[in-house]
Amino acid sequence: MEGKKAIDSRTEQIHAIMYTDINGQDRLFGGQLLKWIDEVAGTTARRHCGSNVSTIAIDNLYFKAGAYLNDIIVLIGRVTHVGKTSLEVRVDTYREDSTGKRFPINRAYLVMVSVDKEGKPIPAPPLILDNEAEHMEWENAVKRRELRLMRQKEGF
Amino acid sequence: MEGKKAIDSRTEQIHAIMYTDINGQDRLFGGQLLKWIDEVAGTTARRHCGSNVSTIAIDNLYFKAGAYLNDIIVLIGRVTHVGKTSLEVRVDTYREDSTGKRFPINRAYLVMVSVDKEGKPIPAPPLILDNEAEHMEWENAVKRRELRLMRQKEGF
Amino acid sequence: MEGKKAIDSRTEQIHAIMYTDINGQDRLFGGQLLKWIDEVAGTTARRHCGSNVSTIAIDNLYFKAGAYLNDIIVLIGRVTHVGKTSLEVRVDTYREDSTGKRFPINRAYLVMVSVDKEGKPIPAPPLILDNEAEHMEWENAVKRRELRLMRQKEGF
Amino acid sequence: MEGKKAIDSRTEQIHAIMYTDINGQDRLFGGQLLKWIDEVAGTTARRHCGSNVSTIAIDNLYFKAGAYLNDIIVLIGRVTHVGKTSLEVRVDTYREDSTGKRFPINRAYLVMVSVDKEGKPIPAPPLILDNEAEHMEWENAVKRRELRLMRQKEGF
Amino acid sequence: MEGKKAIDSRTEQIHAIMYTDINGQDRLFGGQLLKWIDEVAGTTARRHCGSNVSTIAIDNLYFKAGAYLNDIIVLIGRVTHVGKTSLEVRVDTYREDSTGKRFPINRAYLVMVSVDKEGKPIPAPPLILDNEAEHMEWENAVKRRELRLMRQKEGF
Amino acid sequence: MEGKKAIDSRTEQIHAIMYTDINGQDRLFGGQLLKWIDEVAGTTARRHCGSNVSTIAIDNLYFKAGAYLNDIIVLIGRVTHVGKTSLEVRVDTYREDSTGKRFPINRAYLVMVSVDKEGKPIPAPPLILDNEAEHMEWENAVKRRELRLMRQKEGF
Repeated sequence: MEGKKAIDSRTEQIHAIMYTDINGQDRLFGGQLLKWIDEVAGTTARRHCGSNVSTIAIDNLYFKAGAYLNDIIVLIGRVTHVGKTSLEVRVDTYREDSTGKRFPINRAYLVMVSVDKEGKPIPAPPLILDNEAEHMEWENAVKRRELRLMRQKEGF
Repeated sequence: MEGKKAIDSRTEQIHAIMYTDINGQDRLFGGQLLKWIDEVAGTTARRHCGSNVSTIAIDNLYFKAGAYLNDIIVLIGRVTHVGKTSLEVRVDTYREDSTGKRFPINRAYLVMVSVDKEGKPIPAPPLILDNEAEHMEWENAVKRRELRLMRQKEGF
Repeated sequence: MEGKKAIDSRTEQIHAIMYTDINGQDRLFGGQLLKWIDEVAGTTARRHCGSNVSTIAIDNLYFKAGAYLNDIIVLIGRVTHVGKTSLEVRVDTYREDSTGKRFPINRAYLVMVSVDKEGKPIPAPPLILDNEAEHMEWENAVKRRELRLMRQKEGF
Repeated sequence: MEGKKAIDSRTEQIHAIMYTDINGQDRLFGGQLLKWIDEVAGTTARRHCGSNVSTIAIDNLYFKAGAYLNDIIVLIGRVTHVGKTSLEVRVDTYREDSTGKRFPINRAYLVMVSVDKEGKPIPAPPLILDNEAEHMEWENAVKRRELRLMRQKEGF
Repeated sequence: MEGKKAIDSRTEQIHAIMYTDINGQDRLFGGQLLKWIDEVAGTTARRHCGSNVSTIAIDNLYFKAGAYLNDIIVLIGRVTHVGKTSLEVRVDTYREDSTGKRFPINRAYLVMVSVDKEGKPIPAPPLILDNEAEHMEWENAVKRRELRLMRQKEGF
Repeated sequence: MEGKKAIDSRTEQIHAIMYTDINGQDRLFGGQLLKWIDEVAGTTARRHCGSNVSTIAIDNLYFKAGAYLNDIIVLIGRVTHVGKTSLEVRVDTYREDSTGKRFPINRAYLVMVSVDKEGKPIPAPPLILDNEAEHMEWENAVKRRELRLMRQKEGF
């Protein structure tokens, strides 16, 4: 199975925030942002795998800043680590102001698994690391994975 | 400020899964489930705090099993830990079969913060622990918090 | 067929009112509330019957008070009467303020029928009445049923 | 205040049933139909009153037949009775087949009240009855109103 | 195949504008209006053809005026031209004020094609022109068609 | 006012088609696609103008091919022409298969106008043409504009 670079599956999505996206305090609703993050992560993973995928876990994720009605939101998905059948996708969310400047509002790591038509896990193509930043991201992904395993074992 | 028990803010929500909730592989869409989890966590926290709240982080969360069209889904939110202005809420999601038996499909921990009308953090009422299970949950919440702090410091 | 108590199928659902739920006069939109009431009644009936159900009628229903953006809404569904294949479900809707006090905004009675996979009516389990209030509710349900039959006969 | 005829506020709405409108049993979802009925009744009443309106009650309503994906649905709203500030609107819902033939699936009577910008009740224009059928409808509306009052008094 | 008049397939739809329909500048969102226009055009064409239809093109369309929260919107669809398997539908959108006066906000021409269950084009019933206005509309439709063909050939 | 290149405002959006996006014939619903196209065109124009924008016209647009449940859809918006206060945006929509190959399903040209907070037209930054293709696009935009003016004058 041939490897792919992260740039090959990079995925971008924009939204202009509407009333359907904000809560009763007039801020972007966390649940709505999570829906977009899941859609972007899913598409990034499908592009890397060339198959359907399933979300199996979401790693610690922080809401760094709020966003409001009429703001432009940009989501960018990137593959950061690939195991045998699973892969980790990072989704960065930015608010973009009228000069084009971007302010981070969220960073999420999602673990997806490559599946066949029946939903059974299948091998995912290896990830070809292209530069220093991608190597570092890979190492951090390994740390996150170890933490997840440790937590599952210790049960908290 | 008077303390409250976890039972006082316990929150329950049911859904019958419709086409709007499933993805192109006919499974409950992760993003939709996250939207419900955020709504339940927010209501649980508002009931505990008696004020508005904001989601600030979501801890590791696993999708243990899928759910499908016409399934009944039950979400239950509970406060597990309270700091000065922030609190942790656990949301368990179950699929309920026609005999009433429940199967866990997701467990999530969300960190919320109690806010005033301007969105500024305000003190949250203390949590009165009522039994052994709630004490254990509190201790695990402390471990999760330490892990989050460690990760923020080490930057991964 | 074994009987079930009303408590066994009691169903609860919460919502935080968002912009999608209010009309152009900034009040909870009747049609949205009816959508939630139907979902809660359907789940209550499915829990009692252990089968699919269909809504066949909605009895007189009053909107007692309005609800507004960011309000917490609680819906509670209970079986009140069971015939051969049909059953009556009562859904109470409350607005809950920040101290946890609940204010009734709507009470609805829905008639549902237990159906098999092809949508054909099938027997529903008997309802075991547990206390004075449930007996009184049953008698009122009988009156409502007679009124519905009288109206159908007289055609108004 | 000048009177208006029922024909002046008659309101029509069509829908082609999509996946967002059907439930897990592939039938038009009662809650979705109720949302449309409320929208049509509200527009009919606003056209008669020339002001905002609020839904205050829904009279007995029967689901006579189901409807399915891709069906064309027609809703027609008509004013049937006008009191001092309140009015009754009848909404008939039909499924229309490919030859244009219509099959009734629901008839609903909604009680609305004419309101000013602050939501306070204001007088509604009288209804000018135009033919035998409208006179009969008015008399039935009076019977429905008496029944509602009787039920409120007797509390069931 | 028997012909049909334009009046036989005339289609009307009303909406009261809600928060889900407006953008971050508090105006009716173009995309939402287009969704309604497509639904009305599709129903008009299905009524004329007595079969399923597909949208194949939308001709130049102007947004003449805005619409805002709580406005009543009326859409009216009419068949203006019928070819062998395709037909042109005109959809006029109006804002209706509290006195019933209508203000045009959009006029659109959509080209639809009559299709069978497999989505293959099938003949559409001829259009019987009934008056001077309908004859003029037909001639304009022919001009629009020629323009579309010219543009496709010249590729701009 | 400084000019901007088309590349500076290029906008990309992806979607995985879900049940909410398809019609009763299981194809991507034209109205839903138009909603996305309008959102992408609006964001492209806002990025170019650094201000709010309004959609004023949509030029001839063809649906070249269908799309189906679970397909990945890519929309790309680009500024093609800038007048004094208005600008033309082209939105290309593709279906992307599992190997990453893209198939055009729609091309749309939208005319937007740059507006201030009160919705009044304001000057838009000039467009700096960067290559042969962009020059050709500009010329075609001029032809489309002349055609629109001719049609408005002749009234068809």
